[in-house]
Formats: sequence, structure tokens, C-alpha cells
Amino acid sequence: MIPTPLTGVVPPVCTPLTPDREVDVPSLRRLIDHLMEGGVHGLFVLGSTSEVAYLTDRQRRLVVDTAVRHAAGRLPVLAGVIDMTTPRVLDHVHEVTEAGADAVVATAPFYARTHPAEIAHHYRLIATACPVPVIAYDLPSGVHTKLPAEVVLDLAAEGVLTGLKDSSGDLAGFREVVMGVRNRPDLKGFSVLTGSELIVDAALAVGADGAVPGLANVDPAGYVRLDRLYRSGDRESARAEQERLCALFGMVTVGDPERMGGSSSALGAFKAALHLRGVIDCPATAEPQVPLSPEEVERVGKFLAGAGLL
Amino acid sequence: MIPTPLTGVVPPVCTPLTPDREVDVPSLRRLIDHLMEGGVHGLFVLGSTSEVAYLTDRQRRLVVDTAVRHAAGRLPVLAGVIDMTTPRVLDHVHEVTEAGADAVVATAPFYARTHPAEIAHHYRLIATACPVPVIAYDLPSGVHTKLPAEVVLDLAAEGVLTGLKDSSGDLAGFREVVMGVRNRPDLKGFSVLTGSELIVDAALAVGADGAVPGLANVDPAGYVRLDRLYRSGDRESARAEQERLCALFGMVTVGDPERMGGSSSALGAFKAALHLRGVIDCPATAEPQVPLSPEEVERVGKFLAGAGLL
Amino acid sequence: MIPTPLTGVVPPVCTPLTPDREVDVPSLRRLIDHLMEGGVHGLFVLGSTSEVAYLTDRQRRLVVDTAVRHAAGRLPVLAGVIDMTTPRVLDHVHEVTEAGADAVVATAPFYARTHPAEIAHHYRLIATACPVPVIAYDLPSGVHTKLPAEVVLDLAAEGVLTGLKDSSGDLAGFREVVMGVRNRPDLKGFSVLTGSELIVDAALAVGADGAVPGLANVDPAGYVRLDRLYRSGDRESARAEQERLCALFGMVTVGDPERMGGSSSALGAFKAALHLRGVIDCPATAEPQVPLSPEEVERVGKFLAGAGLL
Amino acid sequence: MIPTPLTGVVPPVCTPLTPDREVDVPSLRRLIDHLMEGGVHGLFVLGSTSEVAYLTDRQRRLVVDTAVRHAAGRLPVLAGVIDMTTPRVLDHVHEVTEAGADAVVATAPFYARTHPAEIAHHYRLIATACPVPVIAYDLPSGVHTKLPAEVVLDLAAEGVLTGLKDSSGDLAGFREVVMGVRNRPDLKGFSVLTGSELIVDAALAVGADGAVPGLANVDPAGYVRLDRLYRSGDRESARAEQERLCALFGMVTVGDPERMGGSSSALGAFKAALHLRGVIDCPATAEPQVPLSPEEVERVGKFLAGAGLL
Repeated sequence: MIPTPLTGVVPPVCTPLTPDREVDVPSLRRLIDHLMEGGVHGLFVLGSTSEVAYLTDRQRRLVVDTAVRHAAGRLPVLAGVIDMTTPRVLDHVHEVTEAGADAVVATAPFYARTHPAEIAHHYRLIATACPVPVIAYDLPSGVHTKLPAEVVLDLAAEGVLTGLKDSSGDLAGFREVVMGVRNRPDLKGFSVLTGSELIVDAALAVGADGAVPGLANVDPAGYVRLDRLYRSGDRESARAEQERLCALFGMVTVGDPERMGGSSSALGAFKAALHLRGVIDCPATAEPQVPLSPEEVERVGKFLAGAGLL
Repeated sequence: MIPTPLTGVVPPVCTPLTPDREVDVPSLRRLIDHLMEGGVHGLFVLGSTSEVAYLTDRQRRLVVDTAVRHAAGRLPVLAGVIDMTTPRVLDHVHEVTEAGADAVVATAPFYARTHPAEIAHHYRLIATACPVPVIAYDLPSGVHTKLPAEVVLDLAAEGVLTGLKDSSGDLAGFREVVMGVRNRPDLKGFSVLTGSELIVDAALAVGADGAVPGLANVDPAGYVRLDRLYRSGDRESARAEQERLCALFGMVTVGDPERMGGSSSALGAFKAALHLRGVIDCPATAEPQVPLSPEEVERVGKFLAGAGLL
Repeated sequence: MIPTPLTGVVPPVCTPLTPDREVDVPSLRRLIDHLMEGGVHGLFVLGSTSEVAYLTDRQRRLVVDTAVRHAAGRLPVLAGVIDMTTPRVLDHVHEVTEAGADAVVATAPFYARTHPAEIAHHYRLIATACPVPVIAYDLPSGVHTKLPAEVVLDLAAEGVLTGLKDSSGDLAGFREVVMGVRNRPDLKGFSVLTGSELIVDAALAVGADGAVPGLANVDPAGYVRLDRLYRSGDRESARAEQERLCALFGMVTVGDPERMGGSSSALGAFKAALHLRGVIDCPATAEPQVPLSPEEVERVGKFLAGAGLL
Repeated sequence: MIPTPLTGVVPPVCTPLTPDREVDVPSLRRLIDHLMEGGVHGLFVLGSTSEVAYLTDRQRRLVVDTAVRHAAGRLPVLAGVIDMTTPRVLDHVHEVTEAGADAVVATAPFYARTHPAEIAHHYRLIATACPVPVIAYDLPSGVHTKLPAEVVLDLAAEGVLTGLKDSSGDLAGFREVVMGVRNRPDLKGFSVLTGSELIVDAALAVGADGAVPGLANVDPAGYVRLDRLYRSGDRESARAEQERLCALFGMVTVGDPERMGGSSSALGAFKAALHLRGVIDCPATAEPQVPLSPEEVERVGKFLAGAGLL
């Protein structure tokens, strides 16, 4: 159901909300249309950029149902199963696969203290219970441990994992996985995806299969262009495109750090941009995130204008 | 429904599991009896020691239902509502209060990046939705932020929080809350509870109202004795009792750090001890935790024997 | 030359500077007089509160020379030998012992990545080269590792360490050392000192031999009183004295966190207080610390007044 | 005296030691010859790979004297001035510039708590006192703060900094500096150097001027080849060369993590490799690092053989 390896641009899809913080299904459908028109190669719902941490179980189910139905087989739909430990993750696995997700994306355990042996056991249990491929999600900023490259490679060799989404920002560790996959014929088809939207070109240069950039919500065509330019061998144009996107990414800092955290600022900016671009109806982020002020939204608009998107 | 302030020993109740990792209701009832026979002053279900991070929503509901029914009003039942952010926490609030919990215990948001202003907003939203008192749970080892004393005190003054369970290990910060409560007459009745089982005597000496010690599952009578000795003015005997409990606590290190993490070792030891003492039927911990080996369990037995509990 | 164990109040002596950031020797002598008049039981020069990290080797030597001569055997003088690794620490050991220090105080290696086995080797090498007792200094906020209790106890049993200054804030770990010393007859005379100025009473209650509180520069008599009250058995009065000192300690937050770090604020406040009390000539802190504004100094004055010190 | 920008490969030069841990001057000269024969573009002495944290002031001076005399103007010599805070750093600046270093390399303050405003002040004071260019060294693993890109760029614009050595591993942050330099004409000539030896090709692709790879001690010709291949436009061959070097870098893990820390293992491996290659006389690392076992050294040999270096 998903390519082996999965390549190209697979955005972590924002979850549009109504003013009273319900999932805005029509806006979500329009966002998916917007992404597909941009040429993306897959959809990743219920990731961190999707505010998965803020969505209730009912809302999560509605998101994945909506995405699977709306994608209608035109694109693979990956779904996050983000929760603290294995038993809770397995409940999410049940929900998202019942809804028709083509793959699940799972972090290591968090909140609970954990250990590499327990992380491996966690993924083995998930894979045993899960009817679709399992992709590991390395997000040290949320999970507070780093997935060791050798754990990933060993689990790949066992057939437990079929891919990695690496949002650690550690390109040297990412390369260790890429090289490990290349050097082991039994790992053929394993997908190595970067979640670092500012170095997609560099990740491709070290051998990434694809990217999962949050900013691709705002400018999917830009990331698709970057991917195509790189694959066509025009690395300098790919770099120029990446740098345009880096400048656009500056929007994540519009929020006043005295008043809000980085999530409110970054996700608030993505949603404000989608609202300004006419894709979604309401820029609200989930509670307890703090909304951007009108002036902050105005600055988002300037970033869009600077990138030629408004 | 709960005393203001709540004082004494309020153990975070372990969740006995069957060999196939279902909640073992008869064992949970026996554990509650064991704690009540030990003289404890309240029950805290669905805390970290309860393996809340590992329990599915269904299991959580079963635990709180069982505890409320079995306590039957003889003791206040506090219930953890541990999840990543406000909307998810609110779902747990609904469940545990429907089940009859007398108070809820909530951490700051985790996994998502957060900010003191967002933490305050989080607790305000919980308090607005929650029909019973809200107690803040400071657990930097799991949540990866420290609840600032002034945030706690301000929320107490607003009537949002009615207590704090401090498992940070930072007695100076704990004292700041204690002194803040004492100095502000409008905070009268606010409960300041320590979750640090090795320094309950010291916490009482700086002004704690009570303690929430995981080890009290194993030796509730010991912690109750410590509390009574301290309150009776016999501080040297309280210290001796605390030191006996510190030696007993050594059991949390029986697990081989090459094979398992700290949670597997500590919770595994508590459950092994409860099994050895005949309180629960099965010492299993939830997945993906690693079980203790027979040799490691034997060492738990020696700790029990050393403390006169076997 | 130093008592075994060392007990009572041993302030980490501030290093008064001239406006052009030279060691102000007359002010340092007056500060030592002020501490001795307050009744302290020893002097710890070249600790973190002494701005040891900011003093050149020449300045460090001048400080320890001045302190040893001025103390003139009336009080033991401990000297910090704070540097990144063993060879550099050994150079400091040579200097401070040549100057006549009665004991040296050394952290684990920092900046370089280290390991418990290397930490133990580090202390063994120091002890071999050092003609006076060696005290370990546990300061995770500066060193970024925590000294494990068992490493400390093992080195104590080997005769490598004769004491511990614990500034970790972790009273449970502190207690583990205290209990370890008490349970091993061969460790008799080992000094367990707390560096946490807000919980000296609690540290004494768990068995500390003494305290090394930075705030004792400002109010040595207060800490001496606290120590005496505790030892006389009047714990409630000791607690009241501690709480008065906790309120006074609030001065460390006067500095605007937008403009300066915690060190500039805390050390700036201590020195401003000593200047306001007439003990030292100039409140300057070393570069690149940021000076307090006149308004911030005024707030320090209010803390002094509130504590009855002005 | 140094090119603006400095480009190419500038190895952080290992400091060969005798069996009794004195600087082995003849071996240091041979190592410099080895590096120059490899084609490197500059020498960086007294960096972390040089064990600067372990060298006494006397040893540091001997190293920089030796390097400057032996390089004899054929290559620029950069010298680390690594110490906790400004006054101590200034003493090192005096020493290394008196010895003839062409530039100094300085970290932010460490051990002491610090603040971005204090970091900026630190660099301004250094630049004022220093007769040669100042390069900032971003090493969060040692210093425990990250140099913010905007602080670096602002100090560059002020003329305080003339370059950055970034050993943070954060390529996105690195790119922010690269793009900032390119976008500001007044920053022309500022050198952006990566210290991450596993992603030199990627750093060049995002716009690095050069690299400071510790592994270049072992295989200077390899890194020079990588640099030339990249600049000639043959990026695939540059990547292949980088991947060969990544495999060689595996040597840093030969040390048993039960027995030693990462520094003992990595620096021990580099020195063992230099010894096996006949460049230096003795593979000893400074105290308190733990030496590699004969078996571990044998594994270093296998890495060399695998890379065609033995």
C-alpha cells in the first residue's frame, strides 16, 4: 500500500480547527486538496504538526477517517499513533488502521522512563499487532530520548520497522541510518525520511528517501519543486529553493516568547498562513496554546509575501 | 470531599495486572485493603507508580471504578488525569469524575513544547471543567518542565488549584510553595504534598501537609508510623523510621541496568514485593517494561526481610 | 588541620573586586572579619560564590594568600581548585597548598566528556598529589554530571576523599551519603556538607555535618544561629531562622532576566548587600557578568531591611 | 594573516603526549608534517580534540609555540583559548598571541551560568584585547549552551567575530549563519566552519567555507580530497569520500562504555591510529582518561585497514 521505499514529500498535515476547537472537516479536505495540488507524495496525519498531542481520541479518529476517505487511494495516508507507551499506542493502531491508514508512525515511549531494550520491545509489540507497516518517529524534543541508529537498523532487519521519520535535527545520526540501510541488502525498501524542514536538500544529498516537512502545509509546491530539482540533478536550484523555504520558515518565530511557547508560535504561524492563503477557515490552534496577536499574524503575511505566496 | 488541606499518607496505588496484562481487580481490592489496614489517609490511583502511562483508557476507568467502589467513602480517592495536553486531560477528567473520584491530579502539558503562560491556561481550563478539586502534579522527570512555585501559588490564589503533589526532588522549591501558602491567608487549606519517598521526614519538617510515597504500597504502615511519629513531636524516631524505609527503597535498583530501565526495575520491585507479601496475585508490569529475573526477585525478598516485612 | 568531621557554617567567601576588577584585598580582609564576627566555623575561598570561574590564576593565588594570612590559623581555610580536568586541577592544588590552604575542594571534570570511572581516577590522582585533605564538590548546575553517592562513599573508604560539599539540591542523594557514612565505621570523620542555603535545617535533620551557604556572606550570624538552634534541639526556632534566611535569599532574583543571567543577579545581589552593609568597598562582579541597575540594588536594600540587616 | 574567509580543511591538531603525559614535541612536529603533507589549509591547536581541557597552561604554551615555529608561516595557526570566563580566556589570549597564533578560537563562558547578553559581552571584551581575529567556537556538548545564530551574526557585523567553528551538529542552525552571512554584505569574509566530521559534504553543500574535523588527524588527505572533490563539482565522489571517512570514524566507539567515557574512546582511538600509522611515538591520552586495551587498539587497526590506511 505504501511504496518501498516511500519517497518525495509527505507533509505532516495540519489539523484545521473551528473557533470552538472542533476538527474543521471541510477545511481539512481543502487542505488535503491544496497539498495534492502541490504535488505531494503522501499524507502524514496525526503527527506533531497535526497537533496530535492536543487532539482527543474522537478527534483523532475523525481526522484519519476524513483523510483516508478524501485521499481515496490517490495517495498513501500515514497516521501517527502517538501515546506514552505500548498498550495505549496499540489502541491508536487499532483506530487508525480500522479507518484505513496505510502505515502507522510511532515514537518511542515517553513520560515513562525507558531503555533501548524496552524501546525495541515496544516496536516489536506494535508490529505484531499492526496490519500495516510501522514507521519509527524520532523526535527527541518531544520524547526526550534519541532513537539509536543501531536500534532502528536492527528492528528494520527484523522486519519490525519499514521506515524512519527523523525529526532529531542530527544529520550525522541520520546518515548512519542511511548508510546502514544501503550496506545491508536485507534492508532494501526501508524508507529514511527527514522531518527537518530546513535541511531537506542536505538530507537528500546524504541519501534520504524523502521529507516530512511541517512547512509543506504552507508551501507544498515549494517542497515538491525542491525534491524534483534535487532528483533531476540540479542541486544548486534545489538549494536556492530550500533557502527560499528557510526564509519562509522564519514565520515560526513571530510569536512573542514572553507570551507563548514555540509550539503556539510555529503552529499558529502555519495555520495563520493557511488562513491567509484561503485554504482553511479559521487559524485557531488547540488549547492550551496561545493565539497569535493581529500584529503577529500580519508578520506571517509578510513572510508569505516575501516568498511570493500572497 | 477531601480534607483541606489533605494530610498524612496518600499512596499512589500500584495497578496489579494479570499475567496477560489485564487489570487484576481482586488484587487491586486486596491492595486497597492492605493500604487501609496500614492506616493511610487517602488513595491516589492512576499516578506514575500506578503505571498510568501504560494503562489504556478502558483500564484506567476500571481502576478508578474499582477504587472508588472499594473505598466506598472511607477514604478520599484522588485520580490522575495524565495526558499530553488539555483536551485529552479533559476527557480523563470526565471519566474519573463520572466514576466518583474526589479530586483529580494533573501534570503540565508534555510531549508538546509548552510555556508557563500555557501551563497556567491549561490548569484554568481543567478547573473550569472539573467538578472536583484539581491538584497539580510536578514531575520533571516525566514532563520535562518544572512547575514554577509562583505559577502554583498564583493558581492557588485564583482557586484553580487546591494542592500540589511535588515529585521533583527539589526541597528548596517545595519550601517556596509551603512558605507561600503560609504567608497568604487566602491560600489556607491548600495541600502541599511531597512525592519524594526518601525525604518525607524532611518535607514534613519544612511544612508539608502530607506525602504520596510509591514505596507506601509495600509498607503503608511504615509511612503512617513515620507520619505519626513526626506529628507527635518525636522527630528522631520519625527519622529512624524514614531511614528504615530508605534502606527498603534500595529494592528499586535490583533490576540490571543493562537489561532494563529504571521504571521496570522500580515498579517491578514494588510489585514483586507485594506479590512476595501475598497482597497481589501476579507481579507483572505493563509492556514494554522488562520483567525482573528470579534472582532479582530474590533480592527484593532480601530487602523485605531486612526491613522486617517477610 | 581541619576537624573530622568539619561541622557548622563554612561560607564560600565572596571575592570583593575593585571597580577595575582587581581583587580588593582590604575588602576581602574586612569580609573575613565580618564572617568571623558572625561566628562561622571555617572559610571556603575560591568556590563558585567566590567567582572562582572568573578569577585568573594570579587573582586566585592572591585570594588564598590573603585568606590564609588573615585567618592566621583561627579558622580552617578550604580552597577551591576548580578547573576542567586533573592536570589543570593539580596546578591549582600546588598553588593553594603552597599558600597554606587547609583542604582543597574539587569538582568532577567538566567541559570534557567524562565517566564515573574517570571521575574516581581524577580524585585518586588529586589525593595522591595533595598534601591536605580533599573534599569533593558536587555541582551539577556547573559540571553537568551528578557525583554518584556510591562513588563518593567508595572514595571515602579508600581515603581519597575526606568530605563532600553537595550543591546539587538533591536531598535524597545527600541522605544516601549521610547514611552510607554512618553505616560504615571506616568512614568516621568524613564531612557531609550541604551547599543548599535554603534547606540547611532539613540537611541538618537528615544528618549533615555542616553547611556552605553563599548567603552566609550577607548574614553569617543568621546561619550560625540556625546551626546553633538546631544543635541545641530547638528545631522550630531553627526553622524560623531558616525561613527568615529564605526570605532574604529572595534577593538573588532582583536582576532582570531579560538583561542578565542568574549568576549576575545572585552574585551581584550578594555583593550589593555586602556593599550596602558597609563590608566591602565596591559591589562589582567579574566580567562578563552584567551589573545590577540602581533600582535593582535598591531592591536588594529592601531585602536587607526586611531581614533586619540594614 | 588568515584568509577571509578561511576555507578548506583545518584540523584540530591532536597533542601527542609522552608516556608520563608531557607534550611530546618531536611527535607534534611530525604530526604537523603529516597534516601538511596531507594538504590541509590551516592548523587549529588547543581545541577539544587537542585535549586542551587536559593541558596545563605551561603545556598549552609549549604546544602553540611548537606549532607556530614548525608551521613557520606556511599555514595559518589558530589557537584555542578555552577557559571558563572572560578574564581567564584573556590570559590565554595573551599567551597564544605572544607565541604568534594567527587567530584565537573561544567558546562562550561555561561552568558559570550565563546569558546571551553576557556571551556577547564576553566576545566583545576578547576582541578588544586580542590583536588577532577571534573565531567563536560553538560546542554545546562541552559548554552546555548553544550559540544563537543571531548573536553570532550581530557580533560579526560589529567586527567582533571573524568566524565560527560550529561543532553543535545542528546543520539547520549552521545554515542560518551561512545564509545570514551571505545576505549581509558587511559580513563578507566571515568564515563559517563545521566541526562535524561526518557531514562535511553536507555542510559544504549548504555553504560552509571549510571544516575542522578531528578525524583529519588520522586521514588528512581524505578530508582534503573530499574538499577538493566537492569544490570541483564532483559531489558524488565527495560523498563517497565522506562515507569512507564515516566508516573510518567508527573507530571512536572502540572503547568499552563500561570502562570509559566517550572522550577516552574517541581521542584514544585517534591517537592509537596515529601511533599505528607511525606518526606519533606514544598513544597516551591525558589523565584522567582511561587508556584503550590492546584489543581495543587492535580494533582501531582494523578500521585503518578497512579505510586503506595501514
